[in-house]
Amino acid sequence: ILKHFMNMDFKVGIQPSVSLYCLFQYLPSTVVNTTLRLQALREAMSSVNVSAYIIPGTDAHLSEYIAPRDARMAFMTGFTGSAGTAVVTLNKAVLWTDSRYWVQAERQMDCNWELEKDVSISSIADWLIREVSDTDNIGFDPFLFSIQTYESYSYNLVPAKLMLKSIPDNLVDGVWTDRPLIPPDNLIRLPDRVVGRTWQMKVEHIRTQMTDNPYKPTAVLLSALDETAWLFNLRGSDVPYNPFFYSYTLLTLNEIWLFVHKDRVTEDLKLYLNSTCFPLAHCVQLLEYEQVRVMLKNYMTTSGVKVWIGTEYTNYALYELITPEKLLTSAYSPVLTTKAVKDETEQRILRDAHVRDAVAVIQLLMWLEKVVPEGKETEMTAAYYVNECRSKQKDSRGPSFETISASGPNAALAHYSPSNATSRKLTVDEMYLVDSGGQYLDGTTDITRTVHWGIPTDMQKEAFTRVLMGNIEISRTIFPSGTKGVNMEMLGRRALWEVGLNYGHGTGHGVGNYFGVHECTIALLIVVSLPEPGYYKENDFGIRIEDVVVIVPAHTKYGHNYLTFETVSLVPYDRKLIDTSLMSPQQLQWLDNYYLTIRELMGDELDRQGLTEEKTWMLKHTVPFQSATASAAVSSLSLTLTALATALLHILL
Amino acid sequence: ILKHFMNMDFKVGIQPSVSLYCLFQYLPSTVVNTTLRLQALREAMSSVNVSAYIIPGTDAHLSEYIAPRDARMAFMTGFTGSAGTAVVTLNKAVLWTDSRYWVQAERQMDCNWELEKDVSISSIADWLIREVSDTDNIGFDPFLFSIQTYESYSYNLVPAKLMLKSIPDNLVDGVWTDRPLIPPDNLIRLPDRVVGRTWQMKVEHIRTQMTDNPYKPTAVLLSALDETAWLFNLRGSDVPYNPFFYSYTLLTLNEIWLFVHKDRVTEDLKLYLNSTCFPLAHCVQLLEYEQVRVMLKNYMTTSGVKVWIGTEYTNYALYELITPEKLLTSAYSPVLTTKAVKDETEQRILRDAHVRDAVAVIQLLMWLEKVVPEGKETEMTAAYYVNECRSKQKDSRGPSFETISASGPNAALAHYSPSNATSRKLTVDEMYLVDSGGQYLDGTTDITRTVHWGIPTDMQKEAFTRVLMGNIEISRTIFPSGTKGVNMEMLGRRALWEVGLNYGHGTGHGVGNYFGVHECTIALLIVVSLPEPGYYKENDFGIRIEDVVVIVPAHTKYGHNYLTFETVSLVPYDRKLIDTSLMSPQQLQWLDNYYLTIRELMGDELDRQGLTEEKTWMLKHTVPFQSATASAAVSSLSLTLTALATALLHILL
Repeated sequence: ILKHFMNMDFKVGIQPSVSLYCLFQYLPSTVVNTTLRLQALREAMSSVNVSAYIIPGTDAHLSEYIAPRDARMAFMTGFTGSAGTAVVTLNKAVLWTDSRYWVQAERQMDCNWELEKDVSISSIADWLIREVSDTDNIGFDPFLFSIQTYESYSYNLVPAKLMLKSIPDNLVDGVWTDRPLIPPDNLIRLPDRVVGRTWQMKVEHIRTQMTDNPYKPTAVLLSALDETAWLFNLRGSDVPYNPFFYSYTLLTLNEIWLFVHKDRVTEDLKLYLNSTCFPLAHCVQLLEYEQVRVMLKNYMTTSGVKVWIGTEYTNYALYELITPEKLLTSAYSPVLTTKAVKDETEQRILRDAHVRDAVAVIQLLMWLEKVVPEGKETEMTAAYYVNECRSKQKDSRGPSFETISASGPNAALAHYSPSNATSRKLTVDEMYLVDSGGQYLDGTTDITRTVHWGIPTDMQKEAFTRVLMGNIEISRTIFPSGTKGVNMEMLGRRALWEVGLNYGHGTGHGVGNYFGVHECTIALLIVVSLPEPGYYKENDFGIRIEDVVVIVPAHTKYGHNYLTFETVSLVPYDRKLIDTSLMSPQQLQWLDNYYLTIRELMGDELDRQGLTEEKTWMLKHTVPFQSATASAAVSSLSLTLTALATALLHILL
Repeated sequence: ILKHFMNMDFKVGIQPSVSLYCLFQYLPSTVVNTTLRLQALREAMSSVNVSAYIIPGTDAHLSEYIAPRDARMAFMTGFTGSAGTAVVTLNKAVLWTDSRYWVQAERQMDCNWELEKDVSISSIADWLIREVSDTDNIGFDPFLFSIQTYESYSYNLVPAKLMLKSIPDNLVDGVWTDRPLIPPDNLIRLPDRVVGRTWQMKVEHIRTQMTDNPYKPTAVLLSALDETAWLFNLRGSDVPYNPFFYSYTLLTLNEIWLFVHKDRVTEDLKLYLNSTCFPLAHCVQLLEYEQVRVMLKNYMTTSGVKVWIGTEYTNYALYELITPEKLLTSAYSPVLTTKAVKDETEQRILRDAHVRDAVAVIQLLMWLEKVVPEGKETEMTAAYYVNECRSKQKDSRGPSFETISASGPNAALAHYSPSNATSRKLTVDEMYLVDSGGQYLDGTTDITRTVHWGIPTDMQKEAFTRVLMGNIEISRTIFPSGTKGVNMEMLGRRALWEVGLNYGHGTGHGVGNYFGVHECTIALLIVVSLPEPGYYKENDFGIRIEDVVVIVPAHTKYGHNYLTFETVSLVPYDRKLIDTSLMSPQQLQWLDNYYLTIRELMGDELDRQGLTEEKTWMLKHTVPFQSATASAAVSSLSLTLTALATALLHILL
C-alpha cells in the first residue's frame, strides 16, 4: 500500500472554506449535527480554563489505524477521513485535512465547522495565534501528541506567548456519552509453531541491549502497540487491520510491568506470563492499562533510574514525566530495532505466509480473467473476492489494510478505495490495479498487481514494462551494508525517465527507516517493504507493482558486507503487459529466476491445497521468457553467434 | 579534481600532538621559527583586549586558492597546507588541520605550536572554552569568516559566555612586516571573441532579476572573486589557478560600484567600464578595494534599501553591516546562479577550450606511452610535461589546479600531488593516474585518466572497466529537470558494488550545488563537473575517471523537461584496461558514440595544429568497440541468431 502519496502536493493555492450548503441553510443527510457536542465540549474547556482545544486524529499509541473509541476527531467533526486535526475555540471550530479529503470533509461536516487546507502544524499554530488572545491556554491531550508534535506546536506558539496546557483526561471523552467500550475479547498468545523466540528470550535480548548501552538505562518504555505484542508473542484485535491490543510495557532490568485491561487476560495467559512467580525478573506483573502514567511517575521518583524510549512512537503524556537526566532516547526503541531483524523461524514463517497469500491473489486474478468478460463484476466485488480468498487460508486474520481495487481512471487516484458511489464495473477495455494484503499469525503481506483483460495499448504496455523494469532493477541490485534507501530509489524510475515518464509518490515504504537497523547484524534478515514503482495517467489508468522483499547477504567477487533483495511475494506479473524487447538480458534473467521460484513454491502449495485449475493458471503465467538455450547463448555467445550467423548467411547466399 | 576526499574520516581516535623533535629540542630545517611573530601578535591582541585570536586559512572572498599575501595562517604557523585554522592565546598556539596534513604540519611547525586533529568548529570552540576565562573576548577578522563559520563559533561559544569580537583590521597583517604586496599587474578585459554577453547586458539581466524578485531588493552585493570577474568580463591573476582579481561589487538598480585597486585599472579599461559617463545606471563607478565596508555602511543608512547577498560566499565583515530588515539572502547570489547557465557563445567557446585542452592531454598520454619504457620519467616530469603542453595551446592561462600525477600506490592516496620527496619513477609495471586541468580565456577544464603501459592484472582491468561503466551510466542517464545529483550518484557505483568494490569519495563536485539552478531555464546549458567514479586499492593502485559534462535537453518519447549529460572532455580511455565483455550493449554504444565524437572533433583540431603523430595515436585509441554490423545484430537479432546458430550446428553435426 502507498503511504504519504504525493504528500507535498497540497501547499499551494489553498484557501479555507465553509460548505456551500451552509450558505443555503440546507443540510444534506451526509452531515452530522455537532451543535450539542460542541456546546458540551466548550463547557468542559471553560471548566479547565482553556480557550482552545486541539483534537488530533490519532490514538495514544500513534497507531496507523485507530479503534472506533479513539475516533474523537470524527465524533466531534463528523469527518471520518484517516488524517486531520480539529481545533475548537469558544466561538469557532475548524478542521485541517489534506487534499485527499477536502471533498469528503465538506460533505460530512455541518455548518459549525470550517475547513482549513494547509495541514502543517505551523499553519494550525498561525491560526491559533490569530484567534486566541495572548497568554491564553491552548489545551491538548498529551496522550494524542507525539513528542515531535508537541515540539512543533511549542516552537510555533511559545514565541507568541500562547501557553500549551497538557490535559491528560481527554475532554472529548467526557462529553462522548455513547463512546464505544474497550472490546471484551481476550488477548491470545501465538501458537508455538509460529514463535521463534519465547517472550523470555526476547526480554533477555532487550535487557542485554540495556546493559550493553553505554548510557546504562535501567528501563525500556514501550508505547507502540506492536512493541508489546511482539515482545510477549501476544495478539489482539483492538484496532483495524493490525492484530494488536491496548497496552504499554515498562521493562526494567529486574521487573516486567505490562499495562493492559486485566480482565481480558485469561488464567491460562497469566500462567503463560508467569504473572504470579518469583523472582520478579522473569515474571510479568499485570497492571491496569490506565495506570501507566501513575506507575511511570512513581518509577521516576526512584533514584538512579534512566528510561530508554524510542522518540518516534512515545506519546507526550509519558515523555513529559521523564526528566532529562533520567531519559535516554533513540528514534526507535530497542524492541522496534530488534523486531525488524527476523530470526530463523520468523524468516521461515514469513515466507510461508507469503506462499499462502499468493494463493489468494492467484485465485483473484484467475477468477477475474474468467468472469470480467461476462461484465458483472465491479471494483467492490473484486475487493470482496480477494478478502474471501485470503480468509480461507490457514492462520488468516483478515486484511492488513483496506483493499485498493481500482479500474481505469480510478487507479490513477491517490489513496483510492472503492465505495458504492465510486465503484466501476470491470471491463476488458480498462486496466485494473489491485493493492491488497493480509494479516496471518505468521506474517503480514502487501502486494500490488496491475492487469489488463483485453488488448492493452502500446503505451500501456510500455509504461507497465518500464515500471516492471524499475521493480526488477531495485530488486536485483547489490549494495554495501549501510546504503540508504533514498540512494537506490532512482533505479525504480530510471527506465521510465528514459522515455519521459515518472511517478509522484515515493518508492517503497519502510525502506528508509529500517535500513540503518541492518548494521546490527548481517546473519539475520530484515524485511523491507517494498519497491513500488508506478505510473499514473490522469483520467485514464494507473500502474503499480509492489512486492515484499527481504534483505539478504550477497556474495560478491571481491567484497564483504554486501547485500541484495529477495522477493517473497509470489504472484506473476501480467505477461500481456510485458514487452520483453525493452528489457536487458539481466532483467529477463531475474524475471525468469523469479518465475522459477514461483513455479516451485506455488506449485507445491497449490498441489497441497488441491487447486488444480489455479496451478494450471500459475504455470501458464510463469512460462520462462527466455528458453534455457537462448538465455545462455545471448549472454556468453553473442559475438560468436554473430560470426556464425554471418558465416551461415554467406553459405546460404 | 577531487574535493573533500573522505572528509568524514578524521573524527575517531585523534589526539592532539606536539612534534617529536620538540621533545629532543632539535629543530630540523623544515621548520619555521615563529617565536618573534607570536610575541608581536600577542602584543597586538593585548592592545585590542582579546585573549584569543582565530586565524583561518581563507581569504576575504572565501576563495578556493589564496594569494601569498593572504597566507596568514602559514605565516603565523609555518604550516603551508591548504586547509586549517590557527588559534593563538596569550600562552598557547594551536593549529587544527585534517588527516591529509598531519605529517606535513608536524614537519613544518616549531615547538611554539601544537597540532589538534578534530577540525570541526565545535572542537575548536571546546578548546577555547577550556583555555580562555569566562567573559573574555575571542578576536577574529570578520573578512575571513563566512556567515556559516561565524554562526558555528557563536552557537558553540555564546552558551559558555565567551564573546566573539570582530576586528576588521587583521592583527596578523599588522605584525607581518614582509607581507607580499598587491600584485602590480593591470586587470585585463576578455577579448570580444570569447564574450557572449557584454557587461552591460549582464548588469541588466541581474537588475531584471532584482525587480522580478518579490522581496524587492535594491542592491546585489558580490563578494566572491568569480562573481565580479564574470559580471564585467574582466580577468586578473591575483590568486593561483583562477584568473581573478581582488574585488567587490555593489550593484544597485541605478548605480554600479566596483571596488578594486584603482591604480591597476588602465585608461582603456576605464573607457570600457564607462567610468566617467552619465547617467550613472550604466557607468561603473570605481572605488578603492579597501573602501567596501565604509561604502556599504553608508549605503545601509539610506532608507528603503534592501541588499541581496548569496550567503555561501559573503564574508561576515560585510554581512554584519546589513540589518535584518534590509537583508535578502539566497544560498547563491543571482550572479552565481546566472553564471552557471551558459549562453550560446559560452557553450561554443567552452567546447572549444575542451578541444584544445584534449590536445595537451593526448600529447601527454602519447609521450608517456613512448618514453616510460625507457625508465627516465617520473610523476613530476609527467606533470611538468602536461602543463607545458597546455601552455602552448591558444588562450592558455595556466593550470586550473595543481596536477595530480600519481603512479602505483601514490594514486590510492587522497589529494596526492607529487613532490621531490614522493615522486615515483613511472614504469610499465604500475598504473598511472593523471588528474589535471587548464585555465583558458574561454573556459576551464578538469580531466582525469588512468592508464597502464604494461600488462594490467585481471583485477585492475575489471576495476577500471567497472569505474568506466559507472562513468558511462551517469553520463547516459536521462532524468527529469529538478533531479538532485545525490539521487544519481549511485549509478557511478553500481557496477563496482556488483562485485563488492566501492570508493570513499563523493561522485562529482558542483553537481549538487548547481542542479537546482537549472530550473531557471531549459533552453540554456549548465556545465556540471563531473561524474568522477573511482576505485582505490591501498598501497597498490588508484583508478579514477573524470570528464566535464554539460546538461542538455533530452528528447524523450512521452515527456518534456527531461535532461541528460553531454561529455565535453575529449580524451579516449585506456582500451587496454577495458573489458568489453562486462559492459552492456547500451554502454558500448555510448562509448562508441563518444569515440566517434572524439574522432571528429579532435581529428579536425589535430589536423589544424599539424599534429600528425597525435592524430594517428588518437585514431588508434578510438577504434569503435562494436563493428557496425555486430552492434546492430546483437541488439535486434540475437534471438534470430540463436535460432540460426542452432540450425547451423544441426547442419554441421
